[in-house]
Amino acid sequence: MTTYSDLNIVPRTLLGPGPSDVHPRVLQTLAYPPVGHLDPQFLNLMDEVQDLLRFVFQTENELTIAISGTGTAGMEAAFANFVEPGDSVLVGVSGYFSQRMVDMAERYGAQVRRLERPWGLVFTPEEIEQALAAQPAKLVALVHAETSTGALQPLADIAGIVHRHGGLLLADCVTSLGGLPVQIDAWGVDIAYSGTQKCIGAPPGLAPLTVGPRARAALERRATKVANWYLDLTTLAQYWGPARAYHHTAPINMNYALREALRMIQEEGLEARFARHRAHAELLWAGLEELDLSLHVEPQHRLPTLTTVRVPAGVDEAAVRKTLLERYNVEVGGGLGALKGQVWRVGLMGYSSQRKNVAMLLAALREILGR
Amino acid sequence: MTTYSDLNIVPRTLLGPGPSDVHPRVLQTLAYPPVGHLDPQFLNLMDEVQDLLRFVFQTENELTIAISGTGTAGMEAAFANFVEPGDSVLVGVSGYFSQRMVDMAERYGAQVRRLERPWGLVFTPEEIEQALAAQPAKLVALVHAETSTGALQPLADIAGIVHRHGGLLLADCVTSLGGLPVQIDAWGVDIAYSGTQKCIGAPPGLAPLTVGPRARAALERRATKVANWYLDLTTLAQYWGPARAYHHTAPINMNYALREALRMIQEEGLEARFARHRAHAELLWAGLEELDLSLHVEPQHRLPTLTTVRVPAGVDEAAVRKTLLERYNVEVGGGLGALKGQVWRVGLMGYSSQRKNVAMLLAALREILGR
Repeated sequence: MTTYSDLNIVPRTLLGPGPSDVHPRVLQTLAYPPVGHLDPQFLNLMDEVQDLLRFVFQTENELTIAISGTGTAGMEAAFANFVEPGDSVLVGVSGYFSQRMVDMAERYGAQVRRLERPWGLVFTPEEIEQALAAQPAKLVALVHAETSTGALQPLADIAGIVHRHGGLLLADCVTSLGGLPVQIDAWGVDIAYSGTQKCIGAPPGLAPLTVGPRARAALERRATKVANWYLDLTTLAQYWGPARAYHHTAPINMNYALREALRMIQEEGLEARFARHRAHAELLWAGLEELDLSLHVEPQHRLPTLTTVRVPAGVDEAAVRKTLLERYNVEVGGGLGALKGQVWRVGLMGYSSQRKNVAMLLAALREILGR
Repeated sequence: MTTYSDLNIVPRTLLGPGPSDVHPRVLQTLAYPPVGHLDPQFLNLMDEVQDLLRFVFQTENELTIAISGTGTAGMEAAFANFVEPGDSVLVGVSGYFSQRMVDMAERYGAQVRRLERPWGLVFTPEEIEQALAAQPAKLVALVHAETSTGALQPLADIAGIVHRHGGLLLADCVTSLGGLPVQIDAWGVDIAYSGTQKCIGAPPGLAPLTVGPRARAALERRATKVANWYLDLTTLAQYWGPARAYHHTAPINMNYALREALRMIQEEGLEARFARHRAHAELLWAGLEELDLSLHVEPQHRLPTLTTVRVPAGVDEAAVRKTLLERYNVEVGGGLGALKGQVWRVGLMGYSSQRKNVAMLLAALREILGR
């Protein structure tokens, strides 16, 4: 068979929808020799990771853990645990990841109702209120930061409505957690998940997840076993909780890296970190407008972490990305789903959110687009 | 909130049921900066990982991939994809992980029949034949290397029987792949999975999985969608195959590490690697007998990768493990399930399978047990 050489990968600057660049401190920590998943040292590290995750989620939720898979595994854990066959689920669909939620919820037997808006728009509290008044739902699922469109769904005024109608609010925070405010307790969000490879600043491989008291009670009231063994929170809670019951072998090194990335967030401070993400996003937006490029999302709903740039008429969007990758070793993303071919997706998340990256990307685009 | 220090973990020598020690080359590769999951360089690396996995699985199966989760996610992928509600599944139950298979298969709606043997024994082809003659099964699931008992289930003569009865053979190779022969094609195994953190010699975080043509055809004949989005092989095959359709963000760094670990297996050679595992296991067994300790599994069914040692009467098994951990920084495992408190589990897998580790463990046990 073929003999393979040493790993020989040209480093990139990651300015796409994720993964983002990882700080050398986090990479160095990732490479520390693993210990056992039931070693007292690792159990202690799990406690620390939980504590640090509560800090970034701004929550007191006991059940705040890192799921042993990437962001999509976080989404799957949310639906697997909080949907039983026949349950009514309302999904706000205005992008690729909310569509994925529909597919996932249906696989767990949910009766899914879609509330639809064009890609790039968000839902108002009134729209949620009307939808629930017309027909209640056990679970309402929204994407806080839609990675496919670059739109930010405000969540602050929605949980109250959902709770009044007897439901739980589930939020996808994959592209927001660690890059912009996510206030689980203040907003009353019942279930939220994220990924490690975007604004958190670690490599992909874990999915932070938090479950509030209302959702925890719903989990305990389930009539059926969770239809997913690996992601069953009733048993995972035993592993992450004081019982420490063996469930599965956690990705040890990824948990080392996550701890270090979270520690760097703590050192920077949440407010300073959010301000950094916003300042670099605003620099990027201003620079793109100078290049006569237009943005897909209106300013008031624009994500500071992920910007969707309209591809000008007559420009080959894939060729631009290819040139960026090959000539500059810079990755940006193409459009997904309904926006395929129509936008570029530029992420400034975690360690990638640096002033030098904005300057470099704008200069490269100026050259490639001839503007 | 609490301020956390730098990662401060005392390194261990991992001689338990896994994870095992990881070679510095693999750890160094793990820490290489991530690139995007759709970067041509990463897509190329995925091809290489698939090729190297086919080599260790000894298979030509096209659908040979690394599932983005730990070993248990591999087990879950196997049952989620090859069980539809109402399907008959026969599980050979003689340990903790085969019990887990029963629970998992039932969560996907299987009608599970258990073929039971005491923990530490294995199943003969005749027993499988009789069970299937009495009642056929769409899927027969066996654990090749039972991590909870230390028993090796021969598989060579079983697939033919399963196929004659119209079923598929699924094998758990978590504690065998890379440490002893696993001949997927020669044996006719239809579905097999493993973990990266045992005999493969990488950290935990991925689950190698291979699917043969019979199973692939069964997947295509499914009447229902796979009841698990994250582990759906019909869509994962599009990401790992030539279509390269986005599915989820793969754990980039873990795939770097897996490639390096597999490359080290290729360099050593499968036969030499298996001989190393066997030689060190035999040294261990002889040494344990010299210490007047007895082994739980009969020699002919004993795993070379994981040895179950009977705890002598009057010895506090947990105290021995605690002393090993605290005084020697050596981890061995305790018993699981039916063998809890009755055995120690000693793994000599991957980079942990070294002559010096055998000598050191025997010396430590001699001292601690006062023999």
